[in-house]
Amino acid sequence: MIAAVPNPTISAPTVSDRHRLQTSQLNVPPRLLLGPGPSNAHPRVLQAIGMRQVGHLDPCFIELMNEVQELLRYAWQTDNSLTIPVSGTGSAAMEATLANLVEPGDVVLVGVNGYFGHRMSDMASRYGAEVRQIHRPWGEAFSLAELRSALEAHRPAILGLVHAETSTGARQPLEGVSDLCREFDCLLLVDTVTSLGGVPLFLDAWGVDAAYSGSQKCLSCPPGISPFTLGDRALAKLRARKTPVANWYLDMALVGKYWGSDRTYHHTAPINMNYALRESLRLVAEEGLEARWQRHADNARLLWDGLAAMGLKCQVAEEIRLPSLTTVCVPEGVDAKAVARRLLEDYNIEIGGGLGELAGKVWRVGLMGFNSRPETVLTLLKALEQVLNH
Amino acid sequence: MIAAVPNPTISAPTVSDRHRLQTSQLNVPPRLLLGPGPSNAHPRVLQAIGMRQVGHLDPCFIELMNEVQELLRYAWQTDNSLTIPVSGTGSAAMEATLANLVEPGDVVLVGVNGYFGHRMSDMASRYGAEVRQIHRPWGEAFSLAELRSALEAHRPAILGLVHAETSTGARQPLEGVSDLCREFDCLLLVDTVTSLGGVPLFLDAWGVDAAYSGSQKCLSCPPGISPFTLGDRALAKLRARKTPVANWYLDMALVGKYWGSDRTYHHTAPINMNYALRESLRLVAEEGLEARWQRHADNARLLWDGLAAMGLKCQVAEEIRLPSLTTVCVPEGVDAKAVARRLLEDYNIEIGGGLGELAGKVWRVGLMGFNSRPETVLTLLKALEQVLNH
Repeated sequence: MIAAVPNPTISAPTVSDRHRLQTSQLNVPPRLLLGPGPSNAHPRVLQAIGMRQVGHLDPCFIELMNEVQELLRYAWQTDNSLTIPVSGTGSAAMEATLANLVEPGDVVLVGVNGYFGHRMSDMASRYGAEVRQIHRPWGEAFSLAELRSALEAHRPAILGLVHAETSTGARQPLEGVSDLCREFDCLLLVDTVTSLGGVPLFLDAWGVDAAYSGSQKCLSCPPGISPFTLGDRALAKLRARKTPVANWYLDMALVGKYWGSDRTYHHTAPINMNYALRESLRLVAEEGLEARWQRHADNARLLWDGLAAMGLKCQVAEEIRLPSLTTVCVPEGVDAKAVARRLLEDYNIEIGGGLGELAGKVWRVGLMGFNSRPETVLTLLKALEQVLNH
Repeated sequence: MIAAVPNPTISAPTVSDRHRLQTSQLNVPPRLLLGPGPSNAHPRVLQAIGMRQVGHLDPCFIELMNEVQELLRYAWQTDNSLTIPVSGTGSAAMEATLANLVEPGDVVLVGVNGYFGHRMSDMASRYGAEVRQIHRPWGEAFSLAELRSALEAHRPAILGLVHAETSTGARQPLEGVSDLCREFDCLLLVDTVTSLGGVPLFLDAWGVDAAYSGSQKCLSCPPGISPFTLGDRALAKLRARKTPVANWYLDMALVGKYWGSDRTYHHTAPINMNYALRESLRLVAEEGLEARWQRHADNARLLWDGLAAMGLKCQVAEEIRLPSLTTVCVPEGVDAKAVARRLLEDYNIEIGGGLGELAGKVWRVGLMGFNSRPETVLTLLKALEQVLNH
């Protein structure tokens, strides 16, 4: 039991103070976060995140894990038993779906109509997928007819779509898609990062097999923990894998045992992020999904009307425009970045710029979760008016 | 610019309240976390984590990112420019080192003298490494002679060692190891999860090429963000890769651009976890490493003397025993789990049980960061006495 000292003692180096930075207590400006996310957390969520920790196997944490899972099922409208938060930001949950579902050689068909379709393709290819893409201009959505002919042509194992494209503000209608996927024996994987908790979403009724989201959008929770769910058809593919998941941290065969009845230690859960997510999901359940979706729709309408009154156009057709994220066309001759900078510097309001095809052409305005309130809309409209006219 | 509605409107499903759980406000018991981690966060850290968010590209967050990186360099005693927090728990940072440094076919030699050597092996193999292991009984450490002969026999591209084995409480001396690694042209990768901020650690003086840690041990920060660093030799291997990193979320070619001077968006940083980490690292810099290491050593001594006075033995030889984590031998005839349960239920004290080879044979007692104080030691000793004698 007692091992000898393996090596002779060597005199220790001395501590260098070269990087011993002296900094003051953190003091952050009171930003109103109306960009593509993170959105401001709800005050009750910020209170929850600062509560003292318990252990990740503590009976009271186990109870909290059950609650988080159940509340996530409500928010997503799913009965999926494997419905859990991934211990990372939304991109980690996106990667979790692909790492677990893709086996080398699988054909993965991705609908690319914005930035996140590209990211999904990149991730899938890292797990050995043969990635095929269909494209629509940024800000548009795919029709069932387009999806049918693509499924027919590519016969993928997985179809990946972005329900709410954070880069464009467009909503991809999902009704009817899963019937197609079943017809062509393929899984439907959906990005719901900017829709969960803010935009109508019925995972089971729509037959979605795998989905992920983020905490820092319509859930009003800080980033760092991300909803993830797999349905039975996806689980069957996972269980039939011939190769191990090429990602230990996100391997659902292991993570699922911790969140399931076994409670087997995998990695230390981010305790305080789970406190925060629980509170944000409680707020969803308290308000009720219908009321919450209506609130997001109403405040988006207020924004859109206000923008129109200022002569500003929205980039996405109203029928598929997300209430949670609006892309506003930058008028001719206006410096998009300068406007965003002035909003931040003069009024502490953050909005986002365009990405990719839309860089310099749009601003991205998020009205998500706690921030979807009439007063934030008025504040933004008035501030934007000031900046554009002076 | 205006797309037609892609699909005819189908009447929306109705919201089900099946999973609409009604729960009360979170109320967690006042646990004293003296297990293998998480350890209690410092009160100032819990205050910081609850501060309102700013955007992940906000000028004030960019400033915070610089501070976090610089303070991490101090804590690790390294000049490495790529020194950042990974957006996940310690296991994610462990995976980041392996995902980035391992190319398929690389021989990776892992020193296995506890649970985390096994985990490192598992992860390395998922990235295509040809894993070779050397073993010591749990609780012991490798000598330079053993390491030399293993390097000679296996000629690995990477040698992975666990500086502070959280499963055993043993410290792996690192002095002289990097000279060997350079002689055999191999990288030295080190797990410092349970040593950073509590146990003497000189990354540059010891020639460590890659290291990772956790936030929830001696740094007194909640779990969910994890220090990661690569030195020049590791960066050279990363830059010379022939295959892309098979993990998008942890790909340092991308993550490094966000944390470097480009500030290119990769994923949304966990804002509040970064607030917390900054404060925990500020506490390290305020106290100073020498004082902090001495405090951990002094309180461990208090614990060890107290255990000895009760007739309890430590599992690891004193010369390589970690001040941050002590494995205490369970006396003959005592039910280890029952004792831990009574400490939790009667006194709100969490200690850990043994893992793997040590399951049922030891308790794991952590005195980490904020919890490394004389009063916590006295509390534990007295409570343990009560539970063992009644």
